[in-house]
Amino acid sequence: MHHNSFVRLEARLKPFAEHISPLTITDSEQIGRPWGEAATDGMVAYGNADVWFSPAARAFGKQLYGAPKLAWFQSSAAGLENPFLQKIGELAEAYTSSHVQSEAIAEWVLWAAFDWFGSGAKRRELQAKKEWEKVHFREISATRWLIYGFGHIGEAVGRRLRGLGAHVTGVRRSSQVSPFADHMLHPDHVSADDIALADAILLCAPHTPETENMADAEFFASMKEGSLFMNVGRGALVDEAALLSALDKGKPAHATLDVTREEPLPEDSPIWSHPGVTLTAHTSALTSESRARNDELFLENLANFVNGDALKNLVQRDAFEAQSV
Amino acid sequence: MHHNSFVRLEARLKPFAEHISPLTITDSEQIGRPWGEAATDGMVAYGNADVWFSPAARAFGKQLYGAPKLAWFQSSAAGLENPFLQKIGELAEAYTSSHVQSEAIAEWVLWAAFDWFGSGAKRRELQAKKEWEKVHFREISATRWLIYGFGHIGEAVGRRLRGLGAHVTGVRRSSQVSPFADHMLHPDHVSADDIALADAILLCAPHTPETENMADAEFFASMKEGSLFMNVGRGALVDEAALLSALDKGKPAHATLDVTREEPLPEDSPIWSHPGVTLTAHTSALTSESRARNDELFLENLANFVNGDALKNLVQRDAFEAQSV
Repeated sequence: MHHNSFVRLEARLKPFAEHISPLTITDSEQIGRPWGEAATDGMVAYGNADVWFSPAARAFGKQLYGAPKLAWFQSSAAGLENPFLQKIGELAEAYTSSHVQSEAIAEWVLWAAFDWFGSGAKRRELQAKKEWEKVHFREISATRWLIYGFGHIGEAVGRRLRGLGAHVTGVRRSSQVSPFADHMLHPDHVSADDIALADAILLCAPHTPETENMADAEFFASMKEGSLFMNVGRGALVDEAALLSALDKGKPAHATLDVTREEPLPEDSPIWSHPGVTLTAHTSALTSESRARNDELFLENLANFVNGDALKNLVQRDAFEAQSV
Repeated sequence: MHHNSFVRLEARLKPFAEHISPLTITDSEQIGRPWGEAATDGMVAYGNADVWFSPAARAFGKQLYGAPKLAWFQSSAAGLENPFLQKIGELAEAYTSSHVQSEAIAEWVLWAAFDWFGSGAKRRELQAKKEWEKVHFREISATRWLIYGFGHIGEAVGRRLRGLGAHVTGVRRSSQVSPFADHMLHPDHVSADDIALADAILLCAPHTPETENMADAEFFASMKEGSLFMNVGRGALVDEAALLSALDKGKPAHATLDVTREEPLPEDSPIWSHPGVTLTAHTSALTSESRARNDELFLENLANFVNGDALKNLVQRDAFEAQSV
């Protein structure tokens, strides 16, 4: 694990000292073994934000690839389609994912929605010009939402929105009813009318062959005037040229994106400066609360692992194949 | 009523045609009587946003002052301390207020909070510089709030915040428990520690001799680093010079204000351009949903008035005196 994770968790790892011997890596790729002896019966790894956003991310990966046996890998994310995670999925005897980031991502979505429907940009513009002017805004309470992908993230968003009085339609393959949507639709049943009714459309579906470019010119042409489009799923769900052209026509009126097809977004991309786009750098899950929740999940699964109990969020090997595109 | 209100409500006023004869005023102060004869047994008036934000606001007031008998005045606002409303309070045989704006104001508060805790300014700055950088943010779910004035607005905010997982302390004189706060405090019992614990402090108390300048240098000195201060009550609750000086010291870290001591805020006020201030022009209630809710309240009270039933939100004369400062 990353050295910073170890420092944060050391006291809570001590009770496992009989079974584990921590191996740490710093941002400058220094490998450490704070206590215990090198184990020979397999490696356990915690791949969280401390690692992925560190300059040592690549060196961390090399340790995993080089291990004689990768017994268990705990990810801090839900996504599986990243090439590095695909490889881990092949190597690791057990791979567990995490859905705790949904809570943070749902807060990002509300930030995006309150700022759009609350006329945030107009308010800031008037303040900058020192103009005391009456700006009307729209209440979230009166908005209709269409949420593509109604898994952990979609439900975390839906739960908050329903509490705020909004109307939520969730789109997912599973026919299970959810308490966090007013209405559920199978993706094959979403009509142009369903799209046209929505004041806000959120994509939080995984990237699969079915979802690739799902938001294309035809999709945007069905959207409502004044509506907001948001993507926290994957950039590949969106035809970006079609989105920019649709924004120029006012349908949607605005797009708030946390993901792009190429990340980091190249400096010459027109997405950066399009007046209809608000962009964040794939950071919708980056809260200290997310980190703490992931630490809890890792420690819980570590106890499960040591005791030979079932691991939480165990990912089946075929899930990796379904995600690959 | 304003001509625009009449156009919107005409069909629903028709059932009262036996009892009323509408009198309308346009933005250019044109007086109209669309149907019926001038009544001699008293005037009824609807003072809503159509009127107050119209160039004809003063002319509207003159009609009321000049009426031989002002039988009933329906306000679209909760506040009573404005000199014009004070005068209406003296003249009108019955004065009814409105609390429906609380719903819109609560949405404004969430907009302010999500943008601050969500690092909105930093996100926009990075986009403008085309920098793909990881910005951490804070979840509302992990924030503690202190809300001064736990009436309609405070409760509307508290209800939303508790749904989002935040911890809410409401401050009010009434000892009544509220389902929308985790904790209630009498204003006399708020300690420096209570202030220091809060990640967000919201003022939504009325302006009275007790609340004048309640947020002063000592108050701000107790606030937490990184905290957010918000005011949707009245500008006079805040010592503005003390606020700006406190922001320079980082406690609070930011202030989002919908009201100022002098409105419109003079162009030379340092509040406009202080980097720690987000300012809106007393517009936290300005939604079309607020307008529709006020129209419903007016129509409901009109039926009550015509039928001789009790009026909803009737304000007692001594309430005006308690508010005057």
